[in-house]
Amino acid sequence: MQEYIEKHRDRFLNELLDLLRIPSVSADSKFKPDMLKAAEYVRDRIAEAGADRAEIFETEGHPVVYGEKIIDPALPTVLIYGHYDVQPADPYELWNSPPFEPVIKNDRIYARGACDDKGQFYMHIKALEIMLATGSLACNVKVMIEGEEEIGSSNLGTFVREHKDMLQCNTILISDTSIIANDVPSIETGLRGLTYVEVEVTGANRDLHSGVYGGGVANPINVLCEMIASLKDENGHITIPGFYDKVQELSESERAALNAAPFDLEEYKKDLAIDDVAGEKGYTTIERTSVRPTLDVNGIWGGYIGEGAKTVLPSKANAKISMRLVPNQNDDEICEIFTKHFESIAPASVKVKVVPHHGGLPYVTPTDSVEYRAAELAMEESFGKKPIPTRGGGSIPIVALFEQELGCKSILMGFGLDIDALHSPNESYGLFNYYKGIETIPLFFKHYAELKK
Amino acid sequence: MQEYIEKHRDRFLNELLDLLRIPSVSADSKFKPDMLKAAEYVRDRIAEAGADRAEIFETEGHPVVYGEKIIDPALPTVLIYGHYDVQPADPYELWNSPPFEPVIKNDRIYARGACDDKGQFYMHIKALEIMLATGSLACNVKVMIEGEEEIGSSNLGTFVREHKDMLQCNTILISDTSIIANDVPSIETGLRGLTYVEVEVTGANRDLHSGVYGGGVANPINVLCEMIASLKDENGHITIPGFYDKVQELSESERAALNAAPFDLEEYKKDLAIDDVAGEKGYTTIERTSVRPTLDVNGIWGGYIGEGAKTVLPSKANAKISMRLVPNQNDDEICEIFTKHFESIAPASVKVKVVPHHGGLPYVTPTDSVEYRAAELAMEESFGKKPIPTRGGGSIPIVALFEQELGCKSILMGFGLDIDALHSPNESYGLFNYYKGIETIPLFFKHYAELKK
Repeated sequence: MQEYIEKHRDRFLNELLDLLRIPSVSADSKFKPDMLKAAEYVRDRIAEAGADRAEIFETEGHPVVYGEKIIDPALPTVLIYGHYDVQPADPYELWNSPPFEPVIKNDRIYARGACDDKGQFYMHIKALEIMLATGSLACNVKVMIEGEEEIGSSNLGTFVREHKDMLQCNTILISDTSIIANDVPSIETGLRGLTYVEVEVTGANRDLHSGVYGGGVANPINVLCEMIASLKDENGHITIPGFYDKVQELSESERAALNAAPFDLEEYKKDLAIDDVAGEKGYTTIERTSVRPTLDVNGIWGGYIGEGAKTVLPSKANAKISMRLVPNQNDDEICEIFTKHFESIAPASVKVKVVPHHGGLPYVTPTDSVEYRAAELAMEESFGKKPIPTRGGGSIPIVALFEQELGCKSILMGFGLDIDALHSPNESYGLFNYYKGIETIPLFFKHYAELKK
Repeated sequence: MQEYIEKHRDRFLNELLDLLRIPSVSADSKFKPDMLKAAEYVRDRIAEAGADRAEIFETEGHPVVYGEKIIDPALPTVLIYGHYDVQPADPYELWNSPPFEPVIKNDRIYARGACDDKGQFYMHIKALEIMLATGSLACNVKVMIEGEEEIGSSNLGTFVREHKDMLQCNTILISDTSIIANDVPSIETGLRGLTYVEVEVTGANRDLHSGVYGGGVANPINVLCEMIASLKDENGHITIPGFYDKVQELSESERAALNAAPFDLEEYKKDLAIDDVAGEKGYTTIERTSVRPTLDVNGIWGGYIGEGAKTVLPSKANAKISMRLVPNQNDDEICEIFTKHFESIAPASVKVKVVPHHGGLPYVTPTDSVEYRAAELAMEESFGKKPIPTRGGGSIPIVALFEQELGCKSILMGFGLDIDALHSPNESYGLFNYYKGIETIPLFFKHYAELKK
């Protein structure tokens, strides 16, 4: 197998670079044609890899690519999940090279989507090619690559429900997460859920002169700031009534295990160039970013933001606010109590509108399952080290749905690193990680087939 | 005189419309060529009016237009001040017609600068034409129209200091303010000062994934909101130490006089479509907007503000913040204590930068002066009603400097209305007000010359 990888090393990379050149940004409708282009590219590569089925399925939103190779109905079936859509690339000016013109620097691929998730799901298509070319495929394979993960997979739920039989499988394998370090492999056993809303505060019916009206009429920006500030207390605790009601507190031993993972606070601060971390009092940085819920403003705008000074008292102010959720919080429930609370704290001098964007449930996978064991063995074999189970802070809203609809667990065997700058300018993915993933995935299939015997 | 106005009524209007077609936005450098075009237009009209001098003076920033007509050194001299620059027109989408394509609707001129200040200073140039054409000019006239009022007149100070002799005068007449109503003339006897700053809060050195880092790293938007919220207490009182130290509290009788001006709170709320006003506890709306200082966020931006959702934990958040000042607050002093305080309340997890934009001192003019009396008589004659002295909430930073450098008071005889939507989309100026101003200004000259005899 190593041989095959070496022989096709350059092609494996160039195929990914071609995929990265397609600006498949799902959030912005002006990229709609590129979304289809990306889907077609993925479909064609799956077909070339040797699948006996590779198709594009239309949805209400962006299409889903599906492919499969059924070698023997008696064998276990693994469903590969990934997404070909990427986060918006702005602010463009902060990129050292154009986000959709991938470049290789210091053994890393720089491009939007290099790691999240094009680089990671494409490893599976190459792994499939290898297993078929070398006749080593030990399980049936189904591949589902969607185009709406970055905007909440709003149509994948329907797709899964409508194609339950086609998607039947024993487990779902996903590479959309990170390892602790290239010499410290890890597997994510949990993800945070998400509630994302957009809020609008309206004062007067028009922009006003801040001299003529200033001091006498509510300024929606000041009011929005006050409302946002009031959502947390001085200990970084979220003040929305009922927000923590269903939060699963970890036992002391669970906390100890979690904090046992290698983590250097000084390195962490140095990498981010900050003098101090911040967050909920009474919890470590690892806990704050994995097993505790959050409330972050992802965007805010209002008034005059151009060059120079404008003495305006604006009519409106807006913000995008997201909350990361942990077991057993429910995203719809949290969205509801946030909306109720946010509306309730608005002063009479303004009007408030809350628009829900998308959400997803938090997720936890057991470490004593056959699936987890297969992933553990595969990584141990390729990295030469037993992977550490970790809890991730990110969200893949769809995994909870997979369990509900397909009745099986997802394995989060990702190969990224913290330094990959996901969702940020200059996103990158290590060549080591790309090829290590391609090497590890077939081992998962091997061990999974054996363990299922 | 009325005759002359009637005869040239259409030309007087069309000349103003031509001026309004020039997008002379001083805050945005991309309009620099239009700034010169506007200055040249003003210079030429002053010359045409019959001035024996009309020139453009270069400055470090936008040019100053100066003209004069000296009929007899023994007579008193009136310096007309105005500005040909306008506020930025955005948000463009909220205009019912393009901001720089003036239209007349219901006897109002709709265009950026229609009232502030092109429509108002141009009345003086037409008044000059009338007085010279009808041989009724009773004082020497000097005209100074600048191009940086909306950005703090940063270079006018130097210009005035360098041309003291040229600008020598007995009083300064300015039309850049409003009357209470077309049947309730008024003269502003005071203006608020201004301190305008831009702040930047920086967290991590790059945008981060809000899932991977959320909860563990300071979010500069949340922090900026908390910092801004903390600048006022629950009574709308500004919390910056020392901010009120020099504020001149009005006597009960002064407050009574101020609140005697016609004001209908229900009408006010209806016009702005708000359920309630807001502001500093213990003061009326009239007081809040004229004799009390303010702190307003004029603009805020940070993170992802595009379509859809992006789960980013941004590196930076920015805001433009202005404070309206009252006697005897000093704008430089307030800028200094704001900066000191804002930096002091920043948590260790972020870095803060405060950049001062521009400022100006508050101003009060006595109602027992010859100048004020002349304005009072002029308005009484043209409106048929004695004008009410009011305190304005806006700022004309330069008037305090005029007093300092030229040793004389400014008279704020403006003809705008609250409904003119200064600094807002759909700014307008009433035809009644335009012609009424042209009619009133010559009367000021007449009465001033008589009173000075």
